[in-house]
Amino acid sequence: MQQASGKVLTLESMNPCVKRLEYAVRGPIVARATQLEKELKSGATKPFSEVIRCNIGDCHAMGQKPITFLRQVIAVLSDPSLMDSDRYPADVKARAKRILEGCGGGSVGAYSASCGVPVIREDCAKYIEARDGIPANPENIFLTSGASEAVKAVLELLATGQEGADQPGVMVPIPQYPLYSASISQYNLQTVPYYLEESDNWSLSQAELRRAYDEAVGKCKPRALVVINPGNPTGQVLRKEIIEDVIRFAKEKNLFILADEVYQHNVYAEGAKFYSFKQVLHGMGDAYFKEMELASFMSASKGYMGECGFRGGYCELVNMDPEVQAMLYKQLSARLCSVVMGQAILDVIMNPPKPDEPSFAEHEREKSQVLGDLKLKAQMATETFNSIPGMRCNPVQGAMYAFPSIELPPKLIEEAKAKGMQPDAMYCTALLEEKGVCVVPGSGFGQRPGTYHFRMTILPPVEKLKNVMQIFKEFHESYVNRYK
Amino acid sequence: MQQASGKVLTLESMNPCVKRLEYAVRGPIVARATQLEKELKSGATKPFSEVIRCNIGDCHAMGQKPITFLRQVIAVLSDPSLMDSDRYPADVKARAKRILEGCGGGSVGAYSASCGVPVIREDCAKYIEARDGIPANPENIFLTSGASEAVKAVLELLATGQEGADQPGVMVPIPQYPLYSASISQYNLQTVPYYLEESDNWSLSQAELRRAYDEAVGKCKPRALVVINPGNPTGQVLRKEIIEDVIRFAKEKNLFILADEVYQHNVYAEGAKFYSFKQVLHGMGDAYFKEMELASFMSASKGYMGECGFRGGYCELVNMDPEVQAMLYKQLSARLCSVVMGQAILDVIMNPPKPDEPSFAEHEREKSQVLGDLKLKAQMATETFNSIPGMRCNPVQGAMYAFPSIELPPKLIEEAKAKGMQPDAMYCTALLEEKGVCVVPGSGFGQRPGTYHFRMTILPPVEKLKNVMQIFKEFHESYVNRYK
Ligand SMILES: Cc1ncc(COP(=O)(O)O)c(C=O)c1O
Ligand SMILES: Cc1ncc(COP(=O)(O)O)c(C=O)c1O
Repeated sequence: MQQASGKVLTLESMNPCVKRLEYAVRGPIVARATQLEKELKSGATKPFSEVIRCNIGDCHAMGQKPITFLRQVIAVLSDPSLMDSDRYPADVKARAKRILEGCGGGSVGAYSASCGVPVIREDCAKYIEARDGIPANPENIFLTSGASEAVKAVLELLATGQEGADQPGVMVPIPQYPLYSASISQYNLQTVPYYLEESDNWSLSQAELRRAYDEAVGKCKPRALVVINPGNPTGQVLRKEIIEDVIRFAKEKNLFILADEVYQHNVYAEGAKFYSFKQVLHGMGDAYFKEMELASFMSASKGYMGECGFRGGYCELVNMDPEVQAMLYKQLSARLCSVVMGQAILDVIMNPPKPDEPSFAEHEREKSQVLGDLKLKAQMATETFNSIPGMRCNPVQGAMYAFPSIELPPKLIEEAKAKGMQPDAMYCTALLEEKGVCVVPGSGFGQRPGTYHFRMTILPPVEKLKNVMQIFKEFHESYVNRYK
Repeated sequence: MQQASGKVLTLESMNPCVKRLEYAVRGPIVARATQLEKELKSGATKPFSEVIRCNIGDCHAMGQKPITFLRQVIAVLSDPSLMDSDRYPADVKARAKRILEGCGGGSVGAYSASCGVPVIREDCAKYIEARDGIPANPENIFLTSGASEAVKAVLELLATGQEGADQPGVMVPIPQYPLYSASISQYNLQTVPYYLEESDNWSLSQAELRRAYDEAVGKCKPRALVVINPGNPTGQVLRKEIIEDVIRFAKEKNLFILADEVYQHNVYAEGAKFYSFKQVLHGMGDAYFKEMELASFMSASKGYMGECGFRGGYCELVNMDPEVQAMLYKQLSARLCSVVMGQAILDVIMNPPKPDEPSFAEHEREKSQVLGDLKLKAQMATETFNSIPGMRCNPVQGAMYAFPSIELPPKLIEEAKAKGMQPDAMYCTALLEEKGVCVVPGSGFGQRPGTYHFRMTILPPVEKLKNVMQIFKEFHESYVNRYK
């Protein structure tokens, strides 16, 4: 037993769910990267001159430039006197004016309604309608500080405090984006892991969902199913038939679907196409579309805009019990509102310049530059990883990540175990210490036992990513050979 | 029993803590105000021409103008090309440059570190040092989306899931700002209410703390104590000796102190002065200052700036167990970061123009205009309420609210009870329906049984508040007389 510290809050007496929670994307390797950067800055010599961060989907941090139109609107919202200057085109001013009219006192400094500024919720609905070709109701959309807040709010609704066989379970893909496992710990829910099929381009199968479900029953009560499409960390884009399969399974088992669709603009592979869960649900007829409970998440952080720091996000609810929805909205009201600038940037993403507007051409150019580069880098990453002996990588069809598998020699695995480390974490640590490249070990996202991976973002600029790929070519072989 | 809806999530099967949670500041009367506004807009005739919202501390919504300097910095952060224009003075550009240098890729669109941009945490520490005259460590400061997020994160740490006599209890002032009761419900903690002394200017006494504590023991385990100073909804500013008393009590009972100091700039009454808990702790010697656990909250939403929509806030931790603090920071990392624009506006509040800088004069003028008006309105509200027979109001020493008590005739109380309403909610509803003035019933904040109050913000512009005060003069007597 440790000596009590006399404090009110100790590791022993604090919230055990918070203690359990893990979030690998910002784990120890990333902390070490920050430290290395500091050391470099203060003149230390390292075998590399800069840390290249391929650990997080943080577009601007990796050098992507903001989309001009978005930022001009935000500047006017902040300083409405810019409305009278001729610095910005008319469509920028029109967007800003419309948003300001929706804000209390005409200021983005006012709290908005708990679920967001009404006109912005309307613009989200219009965007969804145009995307899916089916109606969307602004009342079913709530705006949040990043998609993260929305995901957490919906997961929290599922928590009942029950334990054992009655503890609510949430089916989560493995590998997964660790926001899910972290929030599931936080709300004392149970993770029901289902594996994505690496041999089938990280797709998912009804058979595997069924295995996972059946194995969980008795240990918990599965109530919800998370799908991330396009996938993080796995980069797959689900085919329509797969989504139909998932929906049929969820209907059979009466599961609430959480569709994480924050990468809906990020689809690169030939033949791949984004289908929203809502649209697929609609195509399956009223027995599905009028009944199944769905929450779909979208963010300003990804796509071509990558405005992570603005924390703009929305959630659209489909078929949620109106009384439950009222409770959710009541809970949101206790945090007053999400950040209005984040709502505003989301608004402009939902309502970009139209062909007859002055900013259209520049906006299109910037957007296709970003998405074109990402497509190029997706191919480059896939090809390079597959050219390295001992590595295999499914095509990066969408999102912003490659998730290659790495063969690690038994001796390396043993050494890692002896050190109390995950073998892929040891690999990533060596890569960071020797080459200055920061990626996240697969163990942070989950993977089939005995397999090893890492996640690399494809966000560095093309030339820099080329260097990174070159580094991998050299590093992988030389590192692995030390343990042969 | 209600018929099961077949849904996964129903009122019966959802998170019972979320269901229980209440948040009066955005309750049904406020919803009705929004509806009335819509009706007025669509041409309906009402006994009033506009709804005057005195229900929420939302400064800009009530017509307060943003502080120019703050907004200029934000505009440059959004569109850094403004750096090259001569539109803005050098100090604006310098602030923006410094913040951008602290952001990944030099963009506010990058995620920040989980606890906030390092230079902004440093500026908060410098602000606190200047305020208190004692050192502050940036590592103990984390930046959040509004103070709300910080308060919730600290309260959540206290939750253990234990029930009965072991359920963690949080001592909360009554009346209180309902963020506290809402979050306490949400995290399955127990509220331990202690009453503020209306007869002593809403101050608090050790005797009452002791009564509340003793009554709670056995029903739960009190672990934390919330103090709101300056007070919401009560407008008091605590004297130093009172704060010392509170600290001594917390030490005796080993309670974690949550000091909600978001109104630290809002002090109006002659002789009243803001003392931070940290500073008072320091003055009490090492047995206190080196040991007691404290979290202090600050916000960009209040003060003279009133930038609610930006969701900028910080929390400073004092003496938190480093391991617990690491867990808290880990949890914060799962939501990635708070909004960078909110961090940025907080930064400029922490680091306003200095006397030798070009924006100094205008900034001082704007700031003292806002605070001067608030002081005037604080007096006006106090005086008017005290001039109305059947109303009594403690001086509004600080914050942004008056919380007068109202005498309600027994017949009114009976009628309300028959309707299943709180008597003060019935009063406020009538005020809204008949006069278009929206205030929040005291029952939403808690009050001693048998007493009735409402909370009115003093935020409407001086002339409008004069009208509101006139409305109260007429309404109160005429309404109450109907029940005599
Ligand atoms: C799959 C997925 N969902 C949600 C998020 C959260 O994004 P944000 O909170 O920035 O909107 C991310 C961020 O990386 C993500 O990858
Ligand atoms: C006492 C008190 N604390 C905290 C808050 C939360 O403020 P915010 O989340 O906007 O920073 C408020 C808002 O009214 C308040 O009155």
